[in-house]
Amino acid sequence: MKLYSSSYLKQFTKEIFLKMGATPAQAETAASVLISADLRGVDSHGVARLSGYVRLWEKKRLNASPSPKIVYETPSTAVMDGDLGAGLMVAPEAMKTAIKKAETAGTGWVAIRNSNHFGIAGYHAMLALEHDMIGISMTNASPLVSPTFSKSRLLGTNPIAVAIPALKQPPVVIDMATTPVANGKLEVLQRKGENIPEGWAQDKDGNASIDAEILKKGGAMLPLGSDRIHGSHKGYCLGSMVDILTAVLSGANYGPWVPPFVAFLDPPENPVGEGIGHFIGAMRIDAFRPAEEFKKHMDNWIETFRQAEPIDPNQKVLIPGDPERMLEQERRTNGIPLLDPVVEDLTKIGKELGVEFEAYSTVNQNL
Amino acid sequence: MKLYSSSYLKQFTKEIFLKMGATPAQAETAASVLISADLRGVDSHGVARLSGYVRLWEKKRLNASPSPKIVYETPSTAVMDGDLGAGLMVAPEAMKTAIKKAETAGTGWVAIRNSNHFGIAGYHAMLALEHDMIGISMTNASPLVSPTFSKSRLLGTNPIAVAIPALKQPPVVIDMATTPVANGKLEVLQRKGENIPEGWAQDKDGNASIDAEILKKGGAMLPLGSDRIHGSHKGYCLGSMVDILTAVLSGANYGPWVPPFVAFLDPPENPVGEGIGHFIGAMRIDAFRPAEEFKKHMDNWIETFRQAEPIDPNQKVLIPGDPERMLEQERRTNGIPLLDPVVEDLTKIGKELGVEFEAYSTVNQNL
Repeated sequence: MKLYSSSYLKQFTKEIFLKMGATPAQAETAASVLISADLRGVDSHGVARLSGYVRLWEKKRLNASPSPKIVYETPSTAVMDGDLGAGLMVAPEAMKTAIKKAETAGTGWVAIRNSNHFGIAGYHAMLALEHDMIGISMTNASPLVSPTFSKSRLLGTNPIAVAIPALKQPPVVIDMATTPVANGKLEVLQRKGENIPEGWAQDKDGNASIDAEILKKGGAMLPLGSDRIHGSHKGYCLGSMVDILTAVLSGANYGPWVPPFVAFLDPPENPVGEGIGHFIGAMRIDAFRPAEEFKKHMDNWIETFRQAEPIDPNQKVLIPGDPERMLEQERRTNGIPLLDPVVEDLTKIGKELGVEFEAYSTVNQNL
Repeated sequence: MKLYSSSYLKQFTKEIFLKMGATPAQAETAASVLISADLRGVDSHGVARLSGYVRLWEKKRLNASPSPKIVYETPSTAVMDGDLGAGLMVAPEAMKTAIKKAETAGTGWVAIRNSNHFGIAGYHAMLALEHDMIGISMTNASPLVSPTFSKSRLLGTNPIAVAIPALKQPPVVIDMATTPVANGKLEVLQRKGENIPEGWAQDKDGNASIDAEILKKGGAMLPLGSDRIHGSHKGYCLGSMVDILTAVLSGANYGPWVPPFVAFLDPPENPVGEGIGHFIGAMRIDAFRPAEEFKKHMDNWIETFRQAEPIDPNQKVLIPGDPERMLEQERRTNGIPLLDPVVEDLTKIGKELGVEFEAYSTVNQNL
């Protein structure tokens, strides 16, 4: 495992997107979203996924220089056609529209169709923070999750992100898959050759499974709650809500029709919509209450929760967003660790597209 | 256990609220919300709770004839002061405002402070359905839930409800506490003298507990996900989001300052806001996409999920709202079962307020 500086990885990623035809601004945005995932510790959604975007682009299933368009709008809503673009570029455009609407209408809500994977949900929600707005971001994703009582894979890990500003305290940033863990956690244990805990996945017949490779064998991830008695129907409800808001409302594909991220799998036939869907919202704080007053109370809320009595004195109570923020500070200083297969992958796509990937630690040179 | 017709229980409830000073329209609304809980099987939020409202009213902590007022607004938002009213009356008023805003702005969002317990969240969300809108409803509640890693009780079971219309199919109705189960489920097992499953609650030191009475012994409910490895931090995130949207945004009490529903416990000193908080939203479907088109796709979504392959052939896959709808049909026909202590309770408050409760099954007479 080698360490790379975030600025170097971002520059490399940007150049790859430029080679695929992105404008400099688009390439900058896409690279920011991907590197943000690496910095915040969501390694499965960072540069490890860059080749996935390249392979979809090669198959003309992803547009690396999209012109997203608003196809319908009201004072507080819009529907955006993502032009089959990388969601990394489309979602920030949608958030711009949501913020603009919130400035005049108090809130702004944009449903997006005809898009592709948008990276980490939290990035897009956080764009609202500097405007003193609450940011919301959701996406559907290819089906890996079974509803409670079912063996069919019908839902993605369908994340929900909500970013809420505070005054002196850092913002509250919720960024969560609607499953016990994101799929990336299974992949990590796969690579280590370890089992997964019970309650994360089931086999193709719906039996509990601890096999980290069970998804490759027809198994499915379980919704948040794991089983009926611990509320898996609630995780199923949340995943359903995300699927409906992002796709049924926007005109994207939903449920089993969501096209896969991996280019070696073909999209389902007879699509019910276009591409995958996102749902982006912005709520202006002072459309409810003076921003300063709200943020002072958020500081009080955060400080109260941080001071909650811990069960284990060595494990403080955390605020949503704390773990990612702490990791980001650490990785901005010490660099982003990349596994060897990721380095090989980046080197390969670099060669193909004519961008040299420096396959050694550049952390000290580039910070 | 005796069976009572919903129309009889509703009439009785209405008369109790009239005796407390509600207008006929307010009493009708409050009774509708409570009986809806009994019909839908959320017994802990139905007439079993009626005496709780009476006791709070006696202590002047609940206004049974409130005049909720909009204290601030923008085209798509409003803040409502609930006038210390029963949330049963305040939340439907807030939904009227949200719907009106959605008619012109596309969406409407109302944050409510200075309110009291609003009954079942699903009722209020469902009010949007007949307007071809998606309805959303949340409330905070007195603290029973500990954040992940903590033994302090800082959050309520803070439910989220989302109601989404379909065409030929019934609507999708999500109505979920952000804990593995609602507190009412613990009370049911208490009355039966049974244990609770592991993963629902912890003792005062933060150890796993199967004691159904553990909340009375300083224990706490766990967030949805139950433990860290199964995503309890996600349940904690959801409960936090509800607390912030309902209370920090509206100016209500949040976290440990939320006043208790039970009249024998005093509200915390030094409140940080007024009463408890709700958050109500309405999104006009055709602010995004023609309503008919959306609802056809919803039918397809619902039929697809209903036809998902079951694990057990005897347990079909359900759609959010199915269990409550099936129970409502059954109870409208066969009556609502009330436990003896509930019958005694109703009889007692009836005597106090001069409304006779007929303590025998009236199901056949009143259907």
